[in-house]
Amino acid sequence: MPKHIYFLFFPGYQTLDIMGPIEIMSHLPQTSLHYVSREGGPITSAQGFSINTEVLDALPPQSVLLVPGGMATRQLVHDQAYLQDLAIWAEQSSYCLTVCTGAALIAATGALDGKAATGNKNAFAWHKSVRPQVEWQSRARWVKSGKYYTASGVSAGMDMALGFIAEHYGQTTAEDIANKCEYCWQTDPTDDPFAVS
Amino acid sequence: MPKHIYFLFFPGYQTLDIMGPIEIMSHLPQTSLHYVSREGGPITSAQGFSINTEVLDALPPQSVLLVPGGMATRQLVHDQAYLQDLAIWAEQSSYCLTVCTGAALIAATGALDGKAATGNKNAFAWHKSVRPQVEWQSRARWVKSGKYYTASGVSAGMDMALGFIAEHYGQTTAEDIANKCEYCWQTDPTDDPFAVS
Repeated sequence: MPKHIYFLFFPGYQTLDIMGPIEIMSHLPQTSLHYVSREGGPITSAQGFSINTEVLDALPPQSVLLVPGGMATRQLVHDQAYLQDLAIWAEQSSYCLTVCTGAALIAATGALDGKAATGNKNAFAWHKSVRPQVEWQSRARWVKSGKYYTASGVSAGMDMALGFIAEHYGQTTAEDIANKCEYCWQTDPTDDPFAVS
Repeated sequence: MPKHIYFLFFPGYQTLDIMGPIEIMSHLPQTSLHYVSREGGPITSAQGFSINTEVLDALPPQSVLLVPGGMATRQLVHDQAYLQDLAIWAEQSSYCLTVCTGAALIAATGALDGKAATGNKNAFAWHKSVRPQVEWQSRARWVKSGKYYTASGVSAGMDMALGFIAEHYGQTTAEDIANKCEYCWQTDPTDDPFAVS
């Protein structure tokens, strides 16, 4: 079981991409949550509020890295210095989870090449253009490929987080958390009401 | 149509109670979002991260007040100075929305006396004990009573926010936002999978 979960913030991240999984994963037993960014300090969301973060240096063993999306990823996928650090963090993580266009960001490091993955269905063509080497799935609420879990747009991160919990902490733990949050969990990763052709 | 939405933070608020509606409502046209607290400054969530807030003095006309819940409400319902200010803000608002145990907090001001309301189903008996004068609904995803909208636990705030938007901005706007967020909106406020007897 993971011991640490690192939530990666960057300016212009999409609020629910990361706050949904934070809520879900905060109910896990014996797991520490960390709110981090590359530079540390206050980070402003796409929704305009600012949150205080710690500098992410390196991930210890048994860590999960969670990467949100947002319009800011449109620039970040071209920021080689950022991608270089992100590639190291992803490599250090035991599991790397993305939500929404966070998938394109990880994909831009090359970490998803040859792997199945998904992302925001409203920006699906863009994902493909960022990294055609990824086996992008147009119909998937979330996709697991080895240690990488990629969720579809925004709200799908909560379903993926519960799916991840079911796998690593047990189905009962996942169901208990969904009930606690009164969340109607979509348990089937292939059931995607927002699929594109 | 509302012009301003004030999201009220207090130490120990539950993350998704407020972040879900922030995500949903941030896609509204011509509506300003404000992140506020009684004292202003950094406010730490029940999940342990801190967000920077502005002081809430008074709400201007055409404002919505959104009140989250969280374990912190157990103390706040006994804090007469806080309740006095909250009563004024609720009175100033054109619409007052609560999520989870935020309903108990507003109820403690007396604003919901004789009105139908709901709250977190895992803490339903506690809601009743805080203010028996409210017509607490044990089966409701959310309840509208005049200008007051109360949602059930945590995730229900997103369904209520979309219901509020459908009513005041139009059904198409609500559906467009749900699609943008890839959120499976539960449109029926009486459909409550977490109802208690």
